[in-house]
Amino acid sequence: MTGKKYVYSFDEGDKGMKELLGGKGANLAEMTKLGLPIPPGFTITTEVCDLFYKNGKKYPEGAMDQVDEKLKQLEEKMEKKLGDAEDPLLVSVRSGAAESMPGMMDTVLNLGLNDVSVQGIIKKTENERFAWDAYRRFIQMFGDVVMGIEHANFEEELEKAKETKGVKFDTELEVEDLKKLVESYKKVIREAAGKDFPQDAREQLQMSIDAVFGSWNNPRAITYRRLNEITGLLGTAVNVQTMVFGNKGDTSGTGVAFTRNPSTGENKFYGEYLINAQGEDVVAGIRTPQPIEKLNEVMPDNYKALVEIRDKLEKHYTDMQDLEFTIEEGELYILQTRNGKRTTAAAVKMAVDMEKEGLIDQDTAILRIDPKAVDQLLHKRLDPVAVKEQNSIAKGLPASPGAAVGKIAFTAEDARLRKEEGEDVILVRVETSPEDIEGMHAASGILTARGGMTSHAAVVARGMGTCCVAGCDAITISEKEKKMTVGDLALGEDDWITLDGTTGEVYEGQIPVIDPELSGDFAAIMEWADDIRKLKVKTNADTPHDAEVAKKFGAEGIGLCRTEHMFFEGERIKAVREMILAKDEEGRKAALDKLLPYQKDDFKGLFKVMDKLPVIVRLLDPPLHEFLPKEDKDIKELADDMNFDEAKLRQKIEDLHEFNPMLGFRGCRLGVRYPEINEMQIRAIFKAALESKDEGIEAVPYIEVPLVGNKKEFLMIKEIIDKVAEELAVEGKISYKVGTMIEVPRAAVTAEEIAKEVEFMSFGTNDLTQMSCGFSRDDAGKFLNLYVEKGIYERDPFQAIDQEGVGKLMQMCVDSTRKVNKDIEIGICGEHGGEPSSVEFCHRIGLNEVSCSPFRVPIARLAAAQAVIREKK
Amino acid sequence: MTGKKYVYSFDEGDKGMKELLGGKGANLAEMTKLGLPIPPGFTITTEVCDLFYKNGKKYPEGAMDQVDEKLKQLEEKMEKKLGDAEDPLLVSVRSGAAESMPGMMDTVLNLGLNDVSVQGIIKKTENERFAWDAYRRFIQMFGDVVMGIEHANFEEELEKAKETKGVKFDTELEVEDLKKLVESYKKVIREAAGKDFPQDAREQLQMSIDAVFGSWNNPRAITYRRLNEITGLLGTAVNVQTMVFGNKGDTSGTGVAFTRNPSTGENKFYGEYLINAQGEDVVAGIRTPQPIEKLNEVMPDNYKALVEIRDKLEKHYTDMQDLEFTIEEGELYILQTRNGKRTTAAAVKMAVDMEKEGLIDQDTAILRIDPKAVDQLLHKRLDPVAVKEQNSIAKGLPASPGAAVGKIAFTAEDARLRKEEGEDVILVRVETSPEDIEGMHAASGILTARGGMTSHAAVVARGMGTCCVAGCDAITISEKEKKMTVGDLALGEDDWITLDGTTGEVYEGQIPVIDPELSGDFAAIMEWADDIRKLKVKTNADTPHDAEVAKKFGAEGIGLCRTEHMFFEGERIKAVREMILAKDEEGRKAALDKLLPYQKDDFKGLFKVMDKLPVIVRLLDPPLHEFLPKEDKDIKELADDMNFDEAKLRQKIEDLHEFNPMLGFRGCRLGVRYPEINEMQIRAIFKAALESKDEGIEAVPYIEVPLVGNKKEFLMIKEIIDKVAEELAVEGKISYKVGTMIEVPRAAVTAEEIAKEVEFMSFGTNDLTQMSCGFSRDDAGKFLNLYVEKGIYERDPFQAIDQEGVGKLMQMCVDSTRKVNKDIEIGICGEHGGEPSSVEFCHRIGLNEVSCSPFRVPIARLAAAQAVIREKK
Repeated sequence: MTGKKYVYSFDEGDKGMKELLGGKGANLAEMTKLGLPIPPGFTITTEVCDLFYKNGKKYPEGAMDQVDEKLKQLEEKMEKKLGDAEDPLLVSVRSGAAESMPGMMDTVLNLGLNDVSVQGIIKKTENERFAWDAYRRFIQMFGDVVMGIEHANFEEELEKAKETKGVKFDTELEVEDLKKLVESYKKVIREAAGKDFPQDAREQLQMSIDAVFGSWNNPRAITYRRLNEITGLLGTAVNVQTMVFGNKGDTSGTGVAFTRNPSTGENKFYGEYLINAQGEDVVAGIRTPQPIEKLNEVMPDNYKALVEIRDKLEKHYTDMQDLEFTIEEGELYILQTRNGKRTTAAAVKMAVDMEKEGLIDQDTAILRIDPKAVDQLLHKRLDPVAVKEQNSIAKGLPASPGAAVGKIAFTAEDARLRKEEGEDVILVRVETSPEDIEGMHAASGILTARGGMTSHAAVVARGMGTCCVAGCDAITISEKEKKMTVGDLALGEDDWITLDGTTGEVYEGQIPVIDPELSGDFAAIMEWADDIRKLKVKTNADTPHDAEVAKKFGAEGIGLCRTEHMFFEGERIKAVREMILAKDEEGRKAALDKLLPYQKDDFKGLFKVMDKLPVIVRLLDPPLHEFLPKEDKDIKELADDMNFDEAKLRQKIEDLHEFNPMLGFRGCRLGVRYPEINEMQIRAIFKAALESKDEGIEAVPYIEVPLVGNKKEFLMIKEIIDKVAEELAVEGKISYKVGTMIEVPRAAVTAEEIAKEVEFMSFGTNDLTQMSCGFSRDDAGKFLNLYVEKGIYERDPFQAIDQEGVGKLMQMCVDSTRKVNKDIEIGICGEHGGEPSSVEFCHRIGLNEVSCSPFRVPIARLAAAQAVIREKK
Repeated sequence: MTGKKYVYSFDEGDKGMKELLGGKGANLAEMTKLGLPIPPGFTITTEVCDLFYKNGKKYPEGAMDQVDEKLKQLEEKMEKKLGDAEDPLLVSVRSGAAESMPGMMDTVLNLGLNDVSVQGIIKKTENERFAWDAYRRFIQMFGDVVMGIEHANFEEELEKAKETKGVKFDTELEVEDLKKLVESYKKVIREAAGKDFPQDAREQLQMSIDAVFGSWNNPRAITYRRLNEITGLLGTAVNVQTMVFGNKGDTSGTGVAFTRNPSTGENKFYGEYLINAQGEDVVAGIRTPQPIEKLNEVMPDNYKALVEIRDKLEKHYTDMQDLEFTIEEGELYILQTRNGKRTTAAAVKMAVDMEKEGLIDQDTAILRIDPKAVDQLLHKRLDPVAVKEQNSIAKGLPASPGAAVGKIAFTAEDARLRKEEGEDVILVRVETSPEDIEGMHAASGILTARGGMTSHAAVVARGMGTCCVAGCDAITISEKEKKMTVGDLALGEDDWITLDGTTGEVYEGQIPVIDPELSGDFAAIMEWADDIRKLKVKTNADTPHDAEVAKKFGAEGIGLCRTEHMFFEGERIKAVREMILAKDEEGRKAALDKLLPYQKDDFKGLFKVMDKLPVIVRLLDPPLHEFLPKEDKDIKELADDMNFDEAKLRQKIEDLHEFNPMLGFRGCRLGVRYPEINEMQIRAIFKAALESKDEGIEAVPYIEVPLVGNKKEFLMIKEIIDKVAEELAVEGKISYKVGTMIEVPRAAVTAEEIAKEVEFMSFGTNDLTQMSCGFSRDDAGKFLNLYVEKGIYERDPFQAIDQEGVGKLMQMCVDSTRKVNKDIEIGICGEHGGEPSSVEFCHRIGLNEVSCSPFRVPIARLAAAQAVIREKK
């Protein structure tokens, strides 16, 4: 073990070592190799983090010795010494895992300052104010991040100092004020932590390393990883890097830049900077920064150098980069580069542009789009006509595109709770912080009073695809009073506001929103995807409207039409209830006769939209009791309405009650018991198809038998289908198929038998998951979150297919099906059909198609193409 | 097709052709081959029946031509002609499938009689009365069985005739009365059927053949096959046999005999006969017959011949035979032989005796016992002390052993309905008929006023293992008034009676019953079985009493102890509710602390009974809401009792409510969420084991984690077990194992993963069936009977393992488990563990053990041995 290398100098690594050095460390090494101006430093590997947790929070043997050694090398290289009274080395300590987690991990700057070395800085810089300001910043950050003392304690002291002095900005504090502040800060630490701020620089470093590794498993980080589905990482690395200072006066500055516009994708250098500031000032959104192009005016040489670096990095990484830079007394340093986060619209534009520029190929372009995020493009925007009539009450930065309407929530917790109760809320905050993440998820939109395009709120909202207006400084927010004011206007929790994340406008009240149109770049990507993908993508739709939407999104047919949804409307429900309450078959048939014309028209509507494309119609699935009222009042009313004895009605409802309706009298079981129900539906399907034909529409109905667990059940329903088909003489006139859902585990297990009889199969993965895992979707909330938190399931199996369990059953089913019926069409129509990892799984096990809700159709198309590309690799 | 042989003379077949000729036909052929006095005839094969139904009730080509040909051969052999005016051939037409179905299929006797041939009989027999009596009997039977005219119509005419004549018995009617009766019968037929009784004898034969084949699928036959689980038969054969007559006067007679006593198994010729009667008279129980040994007094030669045939047949068939014989004017004929039905006690005695006699080997002896019927031996008998104090109100024949207590039901339908409502009923009938079969199943006991030991009631009751007293002629029964009278005593539907099926005594009221002891013969069979079987047999038991019973029945440990049953008693339920209602972990722990001593004592009790044998303890399984009240009143009461806010209690109950509790928050999910619950149970198990050890008892606890679907769930609970084990320092003191139930389909699918972690597995086939098939046991009643009726499932999958589906999952699970963990103990503990076909399946797929309720332990032991023997073959 002692021979193992745990610490790498920046000149020892490269970008291929992301797993070990973290994204930040690997890129620092890569940039060092490229000859860019990188402040030297070293990286403690992610493996150390992994072993740290595996060994009960003990470091592997020799790791800290290697830190000492690298530190010594760094001191030699910089010709400075940590904690030195003459010319001290100051370093930053930053986390950096293999995947970027902005704001999630802790950072310490200016490390190495103490009562002695602060004098060294003064000597070297001849800038006493700078030195003391650096020192007090360091103590504040160290106290907060490393020693866990609330930020507010330091802020309070800072406010006091400003008050005493009678000034408004930190920058107005002078040396003596800062010296006093240092002492107050030390006192804060002593009182809050029960021990002194450590004067020993090596101890500072050690404590900081400990804190970074410790923060890997803090709740914020865990939540972020869960929400972003980041799994399988070893841990974080720790980067120790020589400090450079953007706050050494007017020839210094710091900034964040993207090689292209992360919001629109435009191929134009994009970023922000602050003169005389440290990097944290930009990201935290406390001062509102300047656009990057203005740097050309104040520091043209540095700007030119930065633009050159921009070009070099983008060519080198063949992707849009997110840079951090600092200018120290006219000297430019790059502190970080990474693939930049972007809106999906930007991702699409960049991918298409870069493909055209010859930077990447089509496969890469396709892989650049996160299918989950495609959603963003499909989201609503404000109705431009309605908007014209409105005056916005304020304007902020267009931080994340889209539109959002909701009532105001002033805390993340409120947002979460009110969303759970079904309210649409807009989270309104002075600025957001990582603690707010769940509330941000819950909110329809986010509005902040402070912070720029790269502020926490903006970055996170874009990642989530949530509409966000940031830095809207016209508004004042009182979290305590739950009040937001803009001029004379005061709004509270019960007030609605509307955000336009694309323009940054904020409106009072609710403004109508309209559906999105897709860009030409998106169309290009989707075309490339369509060329590559092998899976067909259909949609789950029960109405012509949904079918229409889905078709526009590229659906190649309907993969699931749930006929029961059609049973609930208006007059129909009456006939359905008559059918259920009928004494005998004759009575049922009479009621069903009334339903037939409705059903027929429903199907005609779908056939018309899907002209020539297959429409899978599932026969009635839910248990009959779902169609009867449950509340006392409603029962009474129904009895009156139908002139039906109330006691008898109650008895009937009682009779139909089930302990486990999920496993009850539903699906094809209804048809086995009451064939007349299915017969009506089948007749409606065929009649609709025949009439469509007369109207010049080519209907391609696929009749799907639900909840089959046993071949013989299917055959019984098939018999009805054959009978009706013969009766209506559809042979030769309509091309139809008969198949089944695979949702009962037994069906998957006996697929070899079932496969001999059916013409298509469709996995109903919702039910299949319920029965295979023994989870009732309606009840599993009681423990399923816990299960995902504890890692029993990597992801909620109702969101992403549980590949190890349910997926194995699917695989078995497909394999044994293909054995006896090679050409059978197999698809999936559960919620999973539009979830990227599930789509990829479906491709891998050899399905022919997926079906999902209309808005997920583009996601599925893209995911299906990515599956092919990944398989090639 | 025309070349196919559809009809066999009795001298063309043998007993090996049962599938084709049916049991009766094959045995008639075999006996013909043996040279026994068999009236000649021929058999139409079961294949004809099969093709008849397959071809929409049309006979295969050539089949009826072959009947004509065989009929011609028969006429030539007998030198008589069907329908002849001089010396007519009379035949019987009987059904006969490969498996015996007594009373289920229809029979026609005296076929060939018509207005012409009746004269031929008179000429030949010079017995005018006999001829006319035969003719009227034939018309009656033909009208009833073949033409479907209600029996009562003929009975009415017969009663009228006797009234007119002023006599009591049929035998007192004279020639002229009978002639008139023939005319009345013909009129009955004309009026009821709208056509004449057919005078053409060949037409009579054809109609009878049609009727026999037609009866194969009558509801009675279908019900019988379903109840007796008879599947896979082609159909019935039809036997056409020359008539012989037991009713030709005092030198004629007819009887039914068993080569050994079918009730006790005693090796003594056993049977009954009637002088001057046809066979139907004996079976129908209308006249009470004489014991067979009396025949020696009246017809010593025939008796001697019969005894010789008895010996010959038993040696030949190496099994107890059930014979029908007829003596026609001093000439003995054997009409049928078959393996005789017997009580299980008799089966056991015969098997052991025959093995000792060298007639059969041990394997055969074991196979002779129907495991399902072993139940009979284990059933209750009347408490002899209590019986002494009672005077029986009547005595009948001890037709089927055992004891039964219940209220009187006067119709089969009543019996069925009242049983469904949970009542124990005794079915009291003048005599039973095949229509009564479902009611007989439902009844605890059966009492008939007429009929002998071979009457329908007696035969069927013995087959079912239901206690039966038959031919109790002291009682009078009025079905209409729902009244039964014995002397002055009148009893109605609300009165209790008690039957002793072993003595034939009938008692008023309820007499205590006691558990059975097993005979030495049974012990011998079980010992042989134990020597052979490979499966261990354990029991499902939650109390020391059940464990004790099971151990006496040979249980080799406890295969399933359901700890939740222990949660309901007395004070415990209070603590359980406290635990559920506790605000936090601390509160739960306090409540659990109260439960611990109870649980510990429970386990000590089981360990004591099972000293040195393993006891599988399943951790808490049901959802918590099962422990809370549901009714308004009870909720109020509980709130008061516990001093708990009622509204909060309702809220809690509401929170715990589940839509599909079967798939809800239960099993190990409870332990993952509230580890303290399992921790208490585990502590109780280990403490009980340690204390037992101190008391000289060797406890072998197996801790079982329920409802595992994912290896990680198991590991989480395992962690608790390990922790408690360490805490109590059980290592080296107690030998325990940790394992899981396999009841979630996902567990079966991912068994390879789970197998690496567990030390034993036990299939919970109840839940596994629910989830694999998607059937809620509580709800499936709505369609499952229909499913079995329609043949979708051969048998109720909750009674016998669905081998094709659930069984396949089990097989997969076992195979992949053995791949990674060869020595793991795998068992089954669902209801199926005591069901013979399921036990055999468990043996076949390589399980190590089955566990079942105490009374099913001997069944399982026997079934396990039979599985080995059948596998050898």
